[in-house]
Amino acid sequence: MKLSNRIQSMQASPVRKLVPIATKVKQQGKKVYHLNIGQPDIETPDVFMKAINDYDTRIIRYSFSQGEPDLIHAIQDYFARDNIHFSDDEILITNGGSEAATFATIATCDPNDEILVPEPFYTNYNGFTGEVNAIIKPITTYAENGFRLPDRKAIEALITPKTKAILFSNPGNPTGAVLTDDEMQMLADIAIDNDLYIISDEVYRGMAFDQLESKSMGSIKGIEDHLILLESVSKRYSACGARIGAIASKNKILMQNILKLCQARLCVATLEQIGAAALYRLPESYTKGIRKEYEKRRNIVHQTVNQINGVVCEKPQGAFYVIIKLPVVDAEHFVIWLLEHFDVNNETIMLAPAEGFYATKGLGKDEVRLAYVLNSEDMQKAMTILKLGLEAYPERLI
Amino acid sequence: MKLSNRIQSMQASPVRKLVPIATKVKQQGKKVYHLNIGQPDIETPDVFMKAINDYDTRIIRYSFSQGEPDLIHAIQDYFARDNIHFSDDEILITNGGSEAATFATIATCDPNDEILVPEPFYTNYNGFTGEVNAIIKPITTYAENGFRLPDRKAIEALITPKTKAILFSNPGNPTGAVLTDDEMQMLADIAIDNDLYIISDEVYRGMAFDQLESKSMGSIKGIEDHLILLESVSKRYSACGARIGAIASKNKILMQNILKLCQARLCVATLEQIGAAALYRLPESYTKGIRKEYEKRRNIVHQTVNQINGVVCEKPQGAFYVIIKLPVVDAEHFVIWLLEHFDVNNETIMLAPAEGFYATKGLGKDEVRLAYVLNSEDMQKAMTILKLGLEAYPERLI
Repeated sequence: MKLSNRIQSMQASPVRKLVPIATKVKQQGKKVYHLNIGQPDIETPDVFMKAINDYDTRIIRYSFSQGEPDLIHAIQDYFARDNIHFSDDEILITNGGSEAATFATIATCDPNDEILVPEPFYTNYNGFTGEVNAIIKPITTYAENGFRLPDRKAIEALITPKTKAILFSNPGNPTGAVLTDDEMQMLADIAIDNDLYIISDEVYRGMAFDQLESKSMGSIKGIEDHLILLESVSKRYSACGARIGAIASKNKILMQNILKLCQARLCVATLEQIGAAALYRLPESYTKGIRKEYEKRRNIVHQTVNQINGVVCEKPQGAFYVIIKLPVVDAEHFVIWLLEHFDVNNETIMLAPAEGFYATKGLGKDEVRLAYVLNSEDMQKAMTILKLGLEAYPERLI
Repeated sequence: MKLSNRIQSMQASPVRKLVPIATKVKQQGKKVYHLNIGQPDIETPDVFMKAINDYDTRIIRYSFSQGEPDLIHAIQDYFARDNIHFSDDEILITNGGSEAATFATIATCDPNDEILVPEPFYTNYNGFTGEVNAIIKPITTYAENGFRLPDRKAIEALITPKTKAILFSNPGNPTGAVLTDDEMQMLADIAIDNDLYIISDEVYRGMAFDQLESKSMGSIKGIEDHLILLESVSKRYSACGARIGAIASKNKILMQNILKLCQARLCVATLEQIGAAALYRLPESYTKGIRKEYEKRRNIVHQTVNQINGVVCEKPQGAFYVIIKLPVVDAEHFVIWLLEHFDVNNETIMLAPAEGFYATKGLGKDEVRLAYVLNSEDMQKAMTILKLGLEAYPERLI
């Protein structure tokens, strides 16, 4: 039997496909600092498990298809802090931001419809769209200017009758870029004038540095019917394994339709929703502390990278990623070489080759994504390994 | 902006769409016995929460995309009890059987490809296929002969060049039918001779009555490359809200491709996997006890239904559902009437209209699905309400 074309044409995760190599060298006794995946080392706030342990767990029942009311209310309150108000039927709980992105794609696109996405982009957008036959059309951005969006004309030139939505993450994974007010307004204007949905992935919201505000697209007026927000507890609350996300929109017809997708898979795990509600109720001071911690790590990364000759890396402004353009021909080869052939006191690092974050063939081949998800001491060590590794790398260009 | 055609053409859950009416009458003080949804009243074995509480929950980390190794091993051991042996890479953990079914559809079907499904079928199959543009072609079966499959010729007449798979649940939801050895072999032969996948939904496996064995399709020789098994802890272990399922197949290329779908959504909730591993390790005596309990309930249902004039209902053999053909024109009208206009001592029942379980227009309009998920005492009361309700129903035909 043949497999479907759509599954065959999906790529294996560029973040996860080198894991077997890391596993091998770890078994050989080498320590590997994982900067390849956005798994923070910060503890999940203990209110999460406390809420679960306080819950009546005699029967682990189906939750509601739309999600636990208590979690929906907690998310409403979270948005209300920024004066963004959703009613009960404008929020649906999902299996992480991942399912939220898939649902947004299914709801807006039929097969062969197109979504504009600034590249480099979160590589799993390829999966969420490809598995349901939507097509990503990249809006190319560049390391050299900190991945700023091109102007409106350049973006609108990519729009065809098949274009249904613009999808982006803000703060940006993998770029660490935070949209400016002007960029947000431009995207809003493009959506209004071209009758497009805006799918705004805000799972890193609140995680911006240097006193930058990381605004929600929900704060822009006049795009209420266009806007679909993607949310998650994974990063902000260091609860990646909870798989709790949400989709929010003031477009009620859209939400009634997405509810059908929620009903088809019945519900999201009940216990994790109970825990997640407690996370969304953490005070603003919690996010402030997280932000401060990541800003410290960001500074360590940026300072070291700036000391390396031939590297291009504008200071990232948010989330906990940075794309680094390296003086190498093939970043994946360098990543594997670091794992297999390099160490400092039997320690090395793992990065994610960035090619998989681009839709345009050939772009990103000399770039890596680095997630600064380790404590400052480990980050300092890891960055020294990167610096020394690059100096020792036989294929280095500069 | 237009919504996608695919989402607009999806139906709202026929099991869940009447929930608002039930909620309303409950708020008015009426007690409602829920026989409309497969949510058992049996307690989740306490090993589930114990395993979670014993787990290191300081950081709720991403699990592996393929699932927690401990859970995969527990499922291997569970299948091995029936002499079915899967290696580590032949099992992938999913968000319930729901995601397993979606993944099987994506992997086998491109848009407009077809899947044969005996009807009536689990209504969410419509969602799992429709949302990714696969098309269900029904193999009609009938209440009058206990929903036995038609002969091979009748099934093969439905196969077109677009047909990629046969999907069915066994023991059957909503019919309660358990496939005979001959039926299983016939499906296997059809798959082999027509180059089709078999997607065998076995989430009710082990739950068959009257000393019937409920075999896995995995026990049939010669179909290893064709067979995709769908698994879940929801029903057998009364853990619906855990959302832990699995997809298993000895077709390694298929599984390598489905792993890409797993990687795209990163992982399944970590804690629930830890709990689920403990469930799969429960001894055979646990399932035996569950089977005995449901057999008792099944007998209560069947005895009462048989006392009602004009009802067609062969004795169901497994799972915990039965389709009842009623002497009414419109079963949905009857279900709503029971909720809104009937009670016995201020108590009533909620059933699921069966029309949504059929793909062929017009079928099932006079049928309901009943889930016998309440304890014997409640089931007895609920069945009395059904009997008296049908006698009092003004639109009754016989």
